[in-house]
Amino acid sequence: MNLCDIQTGMNLSGFYLLKQASLRTTAAGKPYLAGLITDRTGTVELKVWDYSGPISHEDEGKIVCFQGRVSEFKGALQVTADRIRLAQDNDNYDLSLLVPTAPLDLQETLRELDTMLECMEDEGYQTVCRQMLRRHQRAFTTIPAAKSVHHGFVHGLLMHTVTMMKTAMFLAAQYGEVLDRDLLLAGTFLHDFAKIHEFKVSQTGLVTDYTTAGQLLGHLVMGAQEVKEVCAACGVSEERAMLLQHMILSHHGQPEFGAAVLPQCAEAELLSYIDLIDSRMEIYREVLDKTEVGAFSDRVFALENKRLFRHK
Amino acid sequence: MNLCDIQTGMNLSGFYLLKQASLRTTAAGKPYLAGLITDRTGTVELKVWDYSGPISHEDEGKIVCFQGRVSEFKGALQVTADRIRLAQDNDNYDLSLLVPTAPLDLQETLRELDTMLECMEDEGYQTVCRQMLRRHQRAFTTIPAAKSVHHGFVHGLLMHTVTMMKTAMFLAAQYGEVLDRDLLLAGTFLHDFAKIHEFKVSQTGLVTDYTTAGQLLGHLVMGAQEVKEVCAACGVSEERAMLLQHMILSHHGQPEFGAAVLPQCAEAELLSYIDLIDSRMEIYREVLDKTEVGAFSDRVFALENKRLFRHK
Amino acid sequence: MNLCDIQTGMNLSGFYLLKQASLRTTAAGKPYLAGLITDRTGTVELKVWDYSGPISHEDEGKIVCFQGRVSEFKGALQVTADRIRLAQDNDNYDLSLLVPTAPLDLQETLRELDTMLECMEDEGYQTVCRQMLRRHQRAFTTIPAAKSVHHGFVHGLLMHTVTMMKTAMFLAAQYGEVLDRDLLLAGTFLHDFAKIHEFKVSQTGLVTDYTTAGQLLGHLVMGAQEVKEVCAACGVSEERAMLLQHMILSHHGQPEFGAAVLPQCAEAELLSYIDLIDSRMEIYREVLDKTEVGAFSDRVFALENKRLFRHK
Amino acid sequence: MNLCDIQTGMNLSGFYLLKQASLRTTAAGKPYLAGLITDRTGTVELKVWDYSGPISHEDEGKIVCFQGRVSEFKGALQVTADRIRLAQDNDNYDLSLLVPTAPLDLQETLRELDTMLECMEDEGYQTVCRQMLRRHQRAFTTIPAAKSVHHGFVHGLLMHTVTMMKTAMFLAAQYGEVLDRDLLLAGTFLHDFAKIHEFKVSQTGLVTDYTTAGQLLGHLVMGAQEVKEVCAACGVSEERAMLLQHMILSHHGQPEFGAAVLPQCAEAELLSYIDLIDSRMEIYREVLDKTEVGAFSDRVFALENKRLFRHK
Amino acid sequence: MNLCDIQTGMNLSGFYLLKQASLRTTAAGKPYLAGLITDRTGTVELKVWDYSGPISHEDEGKIVCFQGRVSEFKGALQVTADRIRLAQDNDNYDLSLLVPTAPLDLQETLRELDTMLECMEDEGYQTVCRQMLRRHQRAFTTIPAAKSVHHGFVHGLLMHTVTMMKTAMFLAAQYGEVLDRDLLLAGTFLHDFAKIHEFKVSQTGLVTDYTTAGQLLGHLVMGAQEVKEVCAACGVSEERAMLLQHMILSHHGQPEFGAAVLPQCAEAELLSYIDLIDSRMEIYREVLDKTEVGAFSDRVFALENKRLFRHK
Amino acid sequence: MNLCDIQTGMNLSGFYLLKQASLRTTAAGKPYLAGLITDRTGTVELKVWDYSGPISHEDEGKIVCFQGRVSEFKGALQVTADRIRLAQDNDNYDLSLLVPTAPLDLQETLRELDTMLECMEDEGYQTVCRQMLRRHQRAFTTIPAAKSVHHGFVHGLLMHTVTMMKTAMFLAAQYGEVLDRDLLLAGTFLHDFAKIHEFKVSQTGLVTDYTTAGQLLGHLVMGAQEVKEVCAACGVSEERAMLLQHMILSHHGQPEFGAAVLPQCAEAELLSYIDLIDSRMEIYREVLDKTEVGAFSDRVFALENKRLFRHK
Repeated sequence: MNLCDIQTGMNLSGFYLLKQASLRTTAAGKPYLAGLITDRTGTVELKVWDYSGPISHEDEGKIVCFQGRVSEFKGALQVTADRIRLAQDNDNYDLSLLVPTAPLDLQETLRELDTMLECMEDEGYQTVCRQMLRRHQRAFTTIPAAKSVHHGFVHGLLMHTVTMMKTAMFLAAQYGEVLDRDLLLAGTFLHDFAKIHEFKVSQTGLVTDYTTAGQLLGHLVMGAQEVKEVCAACGVSEERAMLLQHMILSHHGQPEFGAAVLPQCAEAELLSYIDLIDSRMEIYREVLDKTEVGAFSDRVFALENKRLFRHK
Repeated sequence: MNLCDIQTGMNLSGFYLLKQASLRTTAAGKPYLAGLITDRTGTVELKVWDYSGPISHEDEGKIVCFQGRVSEFKGALQVTADRIRLAQDNDNYDLSLLVPTAPLDLQETLRELDTMLECMEDEGYQTVCRQMLRRHQRAFTTIPAAKSVHHGFVHGLLMHTVTMMKTAMFLAAQYGEVLDRDLLLAGTFLHDFAKIHEFKVSQTGLVTDYTTAGQLLGHLVMGAQEVKEVCAACGVSEERAMLLQHMILSHHGQPEFGAAVLPQCAEAELLSYIDLIDSRMEIYREVLDKTEVGAFSDRVFALENKRLFRHK
Repeated sequence: MNLCDIQTGMNLSGFYLLKQASLRTTAAGKPYLAGLITDRTGTVELKVWDYSGPISHEDEGKIVCFQGRVSEFKGALQVTADRIRLAQDNDNYDLSLLVPTAPLDLQETLRELDTMLECMEDEGYQTVCRQMLRRHQRAFTTIPAAKSVHHGFVHGLLMHTVTMMKTAMFLAAQYGEVLDRDLLLAGTFLHDFAKIHEFKVSQTGLVTDYTTAGQLLGHLVMGAQEVKEVCAACGVSEERAMLLQHMILSHHGQPEFGAAVLPQCAEAELLSYIDLIDSRMEIYREVLDKTEVGAFSDRVFALENKRLFRHK
Repeated sequence: MNLCDIQTGMNLSGFYLLKQASLRTTAAGKPYLAGLITDRTGTVELKVWDYSGPISHEDEGKIVCFQGRVSEFKGALQVTADRIRLAQDNDNYDLSLLVPTAPLDLQETLRELDTMLECMEDEGYQTVCRQMLRRHQRAFTTIPAAKSVHHGFVHGLLMHTVTMMKTAMFLAAQYGEVLDRDLLLAGTFLHDFAKIHEFKVSQTGLVTDYTTAGQLLGHLVMGAQEVKEVCAACGVSEERAMLLQHMILSHHGQPEFGAAVLPQCAEAELLSYIDLIDSRMEIYREVLDKTEVGAFSDRVFALENKRLFRHK
Repeated sequence: MNLCDIQTGMNLSGFYLLKQASLRTTAAGKPYLAGLITDRTGTVELKVWDYSGPISHEDEGKIVCFQGRVSEFKGALQVTADRIRLAQDNDNYDLSLLVPTAPLDLQETLRELDTMLECMEDEGYQTVCRQMLRRHQRAFTTIPAAKSVHHGFVHGLLMHTVTMMKTAMFLAAQYGEVLDRDLLLAGTFLHDFAKIHEFKVSQTGLVTDYTTAGQLLGHLVMGAQEVKEVCAACGVSEERAMLLQHMILSHHGQPEFGAAVLPQCAEAELLSYIDLIDSRMEIYREVLDKTEVGAFSDRVFALENKRLFRHK
Repeated sequence: MNLCDIQTGMNLSGFYLLKQASLRTTAAGKPYLAGLITDRTGTVELKVWDYSGPISHEDEGKIVCFQGRVSEFKGALQVTADRIRLAQDNDNYDLSLLVPTAPLDLQETLRELDTMLECMEDEGYQTVCRQMLRRHQRAFTTIPAAKSVHHGFVHGLLMHTVTMMKTAMFLAAQYGEVLDRDLLLAGTFLHDFAKIHEFKVSQTGLVTDYTTAGQLLGHLVMGAQEVKEVCAACGVSEERAMLLQHMILSHHGQPEFGAAVLPQCAEAELLSYIDLIDSRMEIYREVLDKTEVGAFSDRVFALENKRLFRHK
């Protein structure tokens, strides 16, 4: 049963994601487990009375098999487990019901990606892109694009990248006089690649934190470094390597948004706007989805604390 | 002869734009005219010795018929007129050689505009756009989009608007889930419309200054007001009128860039980025056109003083 | 009894404003109502046990007739109702004890307003002001000037406007060389007028939220539009209409404080300072009123988080 | 003759202010003096051929007696001296024609000041003000309020201070509930007093530069220090001394405008706005005076580079 | 027993610092005391049932003698007192176990301070420093350097000042060409001196709040004033007094960090960096001390909300 | 003869740096060379009449052998060449008289550098530093540290680096509890290393411009990349490589000053301050050197436009 549908008095059983867990002691000295379980539709408080393990804080982020009842405590629903255990390898459940996943057809998206890489006429740029994809295909096509702000779901990075590449194709044609399409396309494909090194990703595919290198170096610098190495290894020219690095290093547009250098060629400048558009439109999608027609959303931190309007 | 080709010692005759003019007196007490003449390829200093009129400061921005010689003064070229007079109605010269004009096919662009307006399915939005175009077709399709920063040439506003509408069409399809295509298209069409009221335009079609209302009210507020009136006159719904006004008022994105309100719906947010992209790509086009391959441009004031790189 | 005077164990009955209300269920499955009641002197938690309506969330902002007892829960007072019902039309209670009201003599203030409008020598400016007042007299003289920051009480907008007009009269005389008194006076009278369209006002006269148009267009733009229409309808000159619009559009002084354009004439610049002074002095009045002599207030969000000092 | 009225070919003689002077040598090896002379109406280039002294760079800021002719050089007027000498003590000229002076009646203004000081009911505050005036009457009533931005003329500080005190009187009455009139009045009187220590003032009464202490400590800190000393010397209470210091130290309102601390009581906050109003209205007066009706001024550096509009 | 070591079920007795205290009434109408006790190792909630005094809110910041038990309430530990009383003069406890104290040898630090003052060759600067120390030795060597941000412990100001003076000695030697060592040393010694007037310090030596003068004038201005007075009293030259004042007034570097004037000589500029270094290194010390090796700290408000990394 | 000593009428001959040169034509049609020659003491205008080459614009930045006379033109000195030619390899002149050079003993400085590298106890950090020095010894010890702001002279980068390392040694000892001395020392040594790739350096050793890679990637990113490669090549651990990269990438402290990431460990934070101190003290040295005692300098662009005071 979806957590958005539970009501006081119901029985509940099934597989859920254990978001938080801590072993505690009641005033009366009895051990219990307090935590949160979640699926794609909601989150609810969990209590397991007279329980001292083995499930504990260490198991946050894992899937549990739960059986119990729904009650109300201080005006909010909570669930009390009669039985609870960690999911096993041979358990049969649908992860996509528990963890948010990008709304895309994976095979179709990979085909679109391949087609766009294929259409590059510049061999050097195509080679780097193909080589990067070969190195990291699984991670690149699986991880979210963010911890929470936007595209914070499985396959999020792929969805973000491919959508941006389509926009890049269109604009490269429209502003053909000032843009090198293949440079723009390759820069767009590679811009967030190093997020695969920047994020810690849990068993279920969501971002739980930043890696130490991600925090100390950032995905812009790490991305530029790997692209430089791959260019050298594949015999791609130094000028191409330099331009690709420049696009990756500058794609946040402004220093205060994290750009290591300012965009200084048309493709780099444009990449920063394409990135802005795709991330912003995705935020609108996620926020308006939860807003009633004719009403304003709550304040959205990632959009300068604005409240967004959902018109008819 | 194009002014970019003149050299010391040449004779020069033809029609040029009188950019500056002032009547003065030499140390020896003789009257003369000092000024600048210009065409699309360059600008050069003008001297007319023993001259006390009728051409004067009042004639700046007009076309003159010139005959004289090229010399050098303090390391720079200058031209000395033997004869000079204002162009007459029956003079035969090509204005497009003197005044910068948008690089577009006017009829083709108008057809593209018409097609995009036609494809709107929302009658209300289409009606406002058609009505605004009917009211101001000549001005809208003729004036520049700016005094100098970008699209500062004849038909510049049309070129800017139509290019943006094409991007709007593409992105409305790509992000169909969050965008109302017709609202986006109408807002894009109307966003800079009131520049026809904001600019003073000279005889030759270039912007010479801002009008008083343009300075005191701005094209965002004036544009929203006219759209509101037209909506009321045409029976377009108040909600549509409100949304269109919101898009016009917010299309500069941030208060410090002149937005009267912050964008609060997806179409308004996106419009501000489409505007940014088109103006920035045009600046790149104009600047890189004057930059050698492999070199950096001078600092570009309108792009945060950056120097732009022209790669191969 | 005033809510600031209640103590544990007292009986309490009377009319109060129902600020919040929600119907809930206890752990034992019994329905109850939880909420807040308030008067001008304080706010206290409300509980109605074994209650399932008719009063509910929908009735927030209305007046209730209450009878019950005061107790203490977790260190704070709360009231438990024995009987509770919505106030009826024929109920006899003093709204001004429940809702904060401007500390002014309404008739006297209206007379002062009339005198200042009367003293305008410029017929055009006087006409617009009179016409705007005629259109909206009830709303203009009743609503607060803000949701909470300052003048957030009944008649607040009138108090704010009239006080500012007095300052305008004084400064127009003092700086007569650079100021057109009637323009300054008219601009001051009209500057916040469109708050009557920007706010949602509850039955009791307080602001509960912004209207959709208020949020998407703002009271500056809406005010300028209505003034433009009224000027046209009354035959007031376009220059006057333009200057009044400019004053309304620029009265927040800086873009980051919401000005749609920068003040560009002396009257507009001065209006922004008069507005600043009146709002700031009112914030000081409200904050220092709750601060002991010789002490500092808590941090005041609307005054850049400063703590204010109340000297002897 | 006023310098605004001179024309090529005229003879010119009289007393003028020597604004700049430097002794030079022509290409032919002859010594000459080049400089600028000025009066209240204008400034013109000066040449004295075959001249090697005694007037030199050291005499800038002094008055000279001049006799010569007006000619034109490179499109601008210049004057060539036949005879030139420094003015002597017994020379008879009207300094007020050469140096800009505040547009006020000095005796009347001093009477107004005295009346306002007299009306203070708080003996402590009145004592400090009287004592400061006694110490520095001549300087306080003579110097400009600034080098150039506003009130940059003789008696400028007095004019600025007295006008502000009148506004303070009005607002203290209007906001009597939150303001201590005598504190506001005393703080206003004293706020810029230390400009007498901050400025270097030339023989003719204009500010030529900052003193070293003015630059390193600023008039806010120096003013607060002297007020503290005077309070101690006159037996004024420490709380009064502290509040007056606070007003002086905070009267620039914000740290980025030079405030040493943020205003934290109502009188200090208000003083910063009264100061803003008086300086801004004076800038408008000076700029609009040179602007045609219906036109915009040049950009005004001291008003965030705005262009100001002069309406009818 | 240290509070960091207590566990549910233990008995606890000893002297602790009473951080918070408030007398309350239970739902059942019984009086009790709720509060917090603290030592250098931790803080825990306190309950004293059936207690109505004499200890109350007034005694916060004092030492109490406590005897009772440790229990758990809502997942957190709390202590319940059987007996509690204020510490007496003849009680025997180690204050340094209850209140954080600078990690330094007091006598050794005072000797180092004396040596550095002694090495000044400029008699004037040495005289001021010696005189200031004589006036305020006890306070200067005892109080913290801050309420909480850094050096918020007993002797903190002394530790901060002496460490900075050592750095000043080193840099004065290294940059001897541009620096006057004695001015730098004296300015460093005096820069935060007026914190003795700016802070309210409790019985136990910690900062509890700002004084009114501290809030309204700040330690920069108060420090400069006292140094000026002492210079005058000791016959130190006005230039030295001015330079010392300048260093104190500017040592926060930028107006937005509280500097009353910008640093304008090399010693003042350098002082602001030495201050920055010492305060930042101390924050790192305090934060990293609580961070595991290989991990990042929580966000540190005083360091622009950064998370700090503790490497091996 | 030093250019600071020339006077009208003198003969002048010797070797000078040709700073600017352009071939022009007089009004009379005769060719000439106009330019600037410079030595360490000054700069003067150059004219070579009847000259059409071979020296031209292309030779800017080279040394010329000059023979001619000093005259005065429009109040400024200029030199007219009788003979001029480019310096040859076998010419005998002292380059250090023509080009500004760091005030240091090169051998002594290199010894100091070696000693500090030697004292590192961490083999990994020492290895990277030694290897970087081996790769680039000539460039690193020769080039300036900047184009003009500070240390803009031959050996400037070496001087800047070694001075900073001495400060690092001192502070690593002083704050030993939070600092890893060897990491700080290595980071300091390496922080600006990639300026050897970022600058174009002329024949005479001065910086003339940025390289394309310098402009598009910056010395922070390029430096981090090379250090990463060298670490990998030398078998230095990944954690060391990461920390060194972090220090290089963050050493500008804030994004708006060019930092690619914020400093997040104590050594990185401190490095940014040591860099600030050394660059600022050098600017003071260079500016005060040209300022009279008791006076203020002109505004210094690199120090937020401040005027600096030179006290006794």
